[in-house]
Amino acid sequence: MGPNNAVIYLVEPFGGSMRRQNPNLPHVYWDDAAVTRGDGCFETILVAAGAPTNLDAHLARFTNSARLLDLPEPPAEAWRTATEQAVADFVRESGLEPAEVDAKCQWTYTRGRESTGVPSAWVTVRPIPREQLELRERGAKVMTAPRGYTLAATEETPWLTVGAKTLNYAASMSAVRWAKSRGFDDVVYIDPATGRVLEGATSSVIAVRGDKVRTPTTGGDVLPGTTQAAVFARAEKDGWRCKEKDIDVDYLLSSDQVWLVSSVRGGVRVTAIDGKELPAPGKKDEAKIRKLIDAAVAS
Amino acid sequence: MGPNNAVIYLVEPFGGSMRRQNPNLPHVYWDDAAVTRGDGCFETILVAAGAPTNLDAHLARFTNSARLLDLPEPPAEAWRTATEQAVADFVRESGLEPAEVDAKCQWTYTRGRESTGVPSAWVTVRPIPREQLELRERGAKVMTAPRGYTLAATEETPWLTVGAKTLNYAASMSAVRWAKSRGFDDVVYIDPATGRVLEGATSSVIAVRGDKVRTPTTGGDVLPGTTQAAVFARAEKDGWRCKEKDIDVDYLLSSDQVWLVSSVRGGVRVTAIDGKELPAPGKKDEAKIRKLIDAAVAS
Repeated sequence: MGPNNAVIYLVEPFGGSMRRQNPNLPHVYWDDAAVTRGDGCFETILVAAGAPTNLDAHLARFTNSARLLDLPEPPAEAWRTATEQAVADFVRESGLEPAEVDAKCQWTYTRGRESTGVPSAWVTVRPIPREQLELRERGAKVMTAPRGYTLAATEETPWLTVGAKTLNYAASMSAVRWAKSRGFDDVVYIDPATGRVLEGATSSVIAVRGDKVRTPTTGGDVLPGTTQAAVFARAEKDGWRCKEKDIDVDYLLSSDQVWLVSSVRGGVRVTAIDGKELPAPGKKDEAKIRKLIDAAVAS
Repeated sequence: MGPNNAVIYLVEPFGGSMRRQNPNLPHVYWDDAAVTRGDGCFETILVAAGAPTNLDAHLARFTNSARLLDLPEPPAEAWRTATEQAVADFVRESGLEPAEVDAKCQWTYTRGRESTGVPSAWVTVRPIPREQLELRERGAKVMTAPRGYTLAATEETPWLTVGAKTLNYAASMSAVRWAKSRGFDDVVYIDPATGRVLEGATSSVIAVRGDKVRTPTTGGDVLPGTTQAAVFARAEKDGWRCKEKDIDVDYLLSSDQVWLVSSVRGGVRVTAIDGKELPAPGKKDEAKIRKLIDAAVAS
């Protein structure tokens, strides 16, 4: 199944009706703020074994993004219902048992058409892109790079949507394209002033040392990751010692394992940083962390 | 006429066919990079007296934006033809004489659908939004503000599209919304570290002192403005002394006249900065600058 087998539901933004949209027909207008200036927010949600995962955390971040963008609060029940409906359709149309169906669900919420002033909102469910599945299997060689810009909402810039997961992702995509053209799989951003590790282009960074699990301190330049939070919650239950911490590239290079975590891709082990190979962990040790991440993302 | 009277032409991105698109029907797909991550570039062009203006400068900047975004070079003749065709249709359907028709033309060029990999491209022509006409008449009270982020493409971040006019405009729109909520009309960005004036949220800044015309030094954080360049070219012919220069807010406050210039809005005189009123210039002096800008944008 390709993207054209996607299931799309348009959501009435104030919580009324929803309707199925044919993915082979366009539904976004030329004067939608998403198109004219990337003005909107999104969430990407893993569908595992036929059910959307981690919905509460995604809803909380989505609501916060909308608030930061000064968009009407998304009605939680409508988004839940649309998501369940879209996932149910996708599972049914796949011809598989629910337990066999993994997929990528995305929520999009934009300021809408200039001519109507009504926000646009929709849910898509589609197969997980093959490349993401491959990275899960073989791990990622990453390149570190400064983000090239710093974002800081201060008293003087209260309108800045720091912490919102907005549609303005072109710079990250550009960085990943550049990395791929040089033989890397992904990018990990660092703060050039301090050497702090920030986050992956579309993921959070997690480092494991003994029984310690670390992730760069969130906030400011580091978007709080729903998957990272789920992994920490699960790991703490299982007896790992988890903490946010300022870490640098040397810390990563000398860790037992380094992972990029995100909703749909789940856990991707970092195998090399800037051409320096990370020593492969023992198979059991790696399997333990993968199991932890898989359990966390499927919760 | 509202936005639904817009004339839209879809442009085959490699320079083949083009076709008229009904503005009351959507034409952008859910998996277009413009929608999913604001990944594309645009130009806004004034249509004056029934003809598009300043096309060479817009084409040059558009081509440069595409290059920075690593998109195929836009075929100049196809964009010219589509623009002329769209403007001709708009003029004919307005029922007015060409000389009476001003309008706003926009080019959009995106990385396209994930499922096809073919860029999306289209031209729109629509009435100039009423608010922009009003600002032309009454001038703008502006608020200064740091942009809140700095962009710098260095050797370490060669992928950053600094200087491209991308669809990632949500932060600027957010700043303008915030300004309006506090009784201002627009925002002028300053560099908080140096106090340098940068640019308006969607315009260039021009200051007039005696026979001197000044604009903040372009490059880096300041997008080279096609209108500012046209004004300078025209002004130099008319005997003004024009120069790019690092200027601060005090420089603006003590200038004879301060203008925001952009393609469609043309010239908007700044009447107050952060609540401090600028002394109104003599009517003749103001008219002289307005005439200069009008002549430049209509060239």
